[in-house]
Amino acid sequence: MFENISIIGPGLLGSSIAMAVKERQLAKHIHVWARSESSRRTCSETSWCDSAHENLEASVEISDLIIICVPVDIIIPIFSKILKTLKAEAIVTDVGSVKGAICDAANTLSKGSPIHFIGSHPMAGSEKKGMAYAYPELVNKAPCILTPSPETDTHALKKLLNFWDALGMKTTCMNACSHDALVAKISHLPHILSSTLAASLKDLDSNDFKHAGGGLKDTTRIAGGSPEIWESILLENSNKILKSLEPFETALNQLKTSLEKKDSKVLRKILLEGQAVRKGIEDAQ
Amino acid sequence: MFENISIIGPGLLGSSIAMAVKERQLAKHIHVWARSESSRRTCSETSWCDSAHENLEASVEISDLIIICVPVDIIIPIFSKILKTLKAEAIVTDVGSVKGAICDAANTLSKGSPIHFIGSHPMAGSEKKGMAYAYPELVNKAPCILTPSPETDTHALKKLLNFWDALGMKTTCMNACSHDALVAKISHLPHILSSTLAASLKDLDSNDFKHAGGGLKDTTRIAGGSPEIWESILLENSNKILKSLEPFETALNQLKTSLEKKDSKVLRKILLEGQAVRKGIEDAQ
Repeated sequence: MFENISIIGPGLLGSSIAMAVKERQLAKHIHVWARSESSRRTCSETSWCDSAHENLEASVEISDLIIICVPVDIIIPIFSKILKTLKAEAIVTDVGSVKGAICDAANTLSKGSPIHFIGSHPMAGSEKKGMAYAYPELVNKAPCILTPSPETDTHALKKLLNFWDALGMKTTCMNACSHDALVAKISHLPHILSSTLAASLKDLDSNDFKHAGGGLKDTTRIAGGSPEIWESILLENSNKILKSLEPFETALNQLKTSLEKKDSKVLRKILLEGQAVRKGIEDAQ
Repeated sequence: MFENISIIGPGLLGSSIAMAVKERQLAKHIHVWARSESSRRTCSETSWCDSAHENLEASVEISDLIIICVPVDIIIPIFSKILKTLKAEAIVTDVGSVKGAICDAANTLSKGSPIHFIGSHPMAGSEKKGMAYAYPELVNKAPCILTPSPETDTHALKKLLNFWDALGMKTTCMNACSHDALVAKISHLPHILSSTLAASLKDLDSNDFKHAGGGLKDTTRIAGGSPEIWESILLENSNKILKSLEPFETALNQLKTSLEKKDSKVLRKILLEGQAVRKGIEDAQ
């Protein structure tokens, strides 16, 4: 599918993508750029990395597809650093969870240049971080949202869609602003609630958690995610997250009042609404 | 271990307990009482039910251990109805998720009678409801909190502890009030947040959920639980749940302010606290 693919940042997602690319033979040569020497050494010992580069520019100069897999606040600095080195018609994408500001900046930076930047958001991850937890099946069957702009080259978009499809991902396109509003609701809101729930239990004795059933375990799983990665995602999308908190807080206040007043009707209404939405989430899979 | 055991209410938990009792041969004869004729018919066709009773009193009169597995608001009505029929030294327990009011009422009702009421809370369940989803392994390795009072007969308590242990459960004893405060935090708070999160997404299009990753799925799983069962649990423990909401709301307000002010320090602090608590939850298992 491609001669040369570059993975910038072989973390959990970057390494998993590289493994899947190798397994499905979607590139002849996989280049990896990693900041730390130990990561490069580990990469060069794997079967899915053909060249582990220390030099960022060297890692991308002959590539047809460059996938930037670094925390959201470093994507644009990386992109602006490699832009001049890229060969004509190269496709650059990223895997950031927030797309508006990144796509705007990348489109502005690359205006008039012969390369194609198209944002991607492969919605595959885990509360675990780093190459050690990577596996090729992580991206298989997971959703992947692409955020082309009206100016995006349709041929390049088609190639990128085909790439994610070939990895087994369920691709959709939407504009970056709609993407950010949607993930504020279906990804960032669950994350802050999971973290806040867990943080609110910090005074419990560690023995108390021996009595926890599956409910606490499931609702707090994503609170185990990397604070570093999530801090930049949440700050990047803060306005839309604050907006998504409004209906949550309205519903929570109704529920509180129903408990204070022992109002079973309102309480039942919220529980039924929650159950119906949960069914919708299950049915959509 | 027992000659006769009665299961009052063969729902998900009641049926799973009965299956496990049969599998581990902890009783010679399992009596089941079910309100509906169809449930009784289904029960009588299984290998784990020896007698399916229509008459409540008849279902318990020769039993050594009676396990009341009905929604929390019906436990005491059932108990007061069977009390006069029970044989001397019979042990009665329930599986309710809230214990204070139930244990108080049961102890008052049975004062001076030759039977032993001891509250139990096997913390095993699922968002699925009913006998159709029951399986004997549901209770294996799950926590079970017993809530004896200072007056509880130690011999009866030991027998009941041995029973739950023999089902593979991890038993602990605490007083009913401490139990209710603890489950408000580690079970009821996660439940209302899961339901409220799901309910707050009711205006989304069902297609939007196709883009949901594992985070939304895990955080909303328990919102799929029965509104009928959870309504009575939440109302029964409302004061302690409202109390457990206070630190959650404090943390949520701090997080909101951190997003509004782009204050990465406070945001990171909450994410780190959440991650540390999550680790504690994992380590406790």
